[in-house]
Amino acid sequence: MKVVLYMAITANGYIAKENDETPWSDEEWDSFSNIAKKIGNLVIGRKTFEIMNQDDEFQQIGNPFTVIVSNKENNNSNFVNSPEQAIKLLEEKGFSEILVAGGGMLNSSFMQKGLVDEIYLDVEPFLFGKGIKLFADNEFETKLELLETKQLSKNTIQLHYRILK
Amino acid sequence: MKVVLYMAITANGYIAKENDETPWSDEEWDSFSNIAKKIGNLVIGRKTFEIMNQDDEFQQIGNPFTVIVSNKENNNSNFVNSPEQAIKLLEEKGFSEILVAGGGMLNSSFMQKGLVDEIYLDVEPFLFGKGIKLFADNEFETKLELLETKQLSKNTIQLHYRILK
Repeated sequence: MKVVLYMAITANGYIAKENDETPWSDEEWDSFSNIAKKIGNLVIGRKTFEIMNQDDEFQQIGNPFTVIVSNKENNNSNFVNSPEQAIKLLEEKGFSEILVAGGGMLNSSFMQKGLVDEIYLDVEPFLFGKGIKLFADNEFETKLELLETKQLSKNTIQLHYRILK
Repeated sequence: MKVVLYMAITANGYIAKENDETPWSDEEWDSFSNIAKKIGNLVIGRKTFEIMNQDDEFQQIGNPFTVIVSNKENNNSNFVNSPEQAIKLLEEKGFSEILVAGGGMLNSSFMQKGLVDEIYLDVEPFLFGKGIKLFADNEFETKLELLETKQLSKNTIQLHYRILK
């Protein structure tokens, strides 16, 4: 199973303002939409799920098979308790590739467990003095191989890395 | 006075590990050296000064005129108490361009006061689960214009931005 993490960040590594606001570009959203449609699934945390649910965002990205990782009990079979369970569920559904897309706690959990194979970072032209980190504080240190850089728009650059294991 | 901030960061925005370790590439150091030699001065915080002092790093970058911003009293005339005083001192010395190079608290102070004109970020191929942030937490939000991207080595990419004011 190949696990791909995809996030938009400020040039200093924040995935949102402290109030969850994400002033990202249309070009960034288009790029994310394309990969979400291609892969056909999405693994996200509960809060990211709630935010996306408010805006018809799942529809915009082709209603991918969505797995929500949450500590809370939930009878919906798409809610699981851990990254490993999310991978298992998507394996059972026949997927060979998984798209992980936030928030910072879920990203960090996947990284700390060594489960991520590739990462796309769309670097948006902002610096925030505070915000929500790409990875919630955790114990890991990973080397990367730069696979590709792509200019998504005048001011937005995409960095595509392989995680070295 | 043009103020340029130059830092190496992980792909998730850390300028060092929590223990101050910075496993950056030779190509990154060469790029920094070149700009330091060109500009001829350096504004850094006290801790960055102490770290650079241990390693003959000032010599390697051409012994630039170095101003240290510190809260502590110091009789050395190159120690000042604020970013504004650093700028004033370098203006008096005849410089028209200033190089700011960390750490996170000094960078953040320059940003929060709106004193930075351009920023170079050498994105090194690492992800740290924890570390020292490019900007210590502060109240600011800045838009950027991407001026140039430059591949410093196979896995290191330099992002060069103008700060929009």
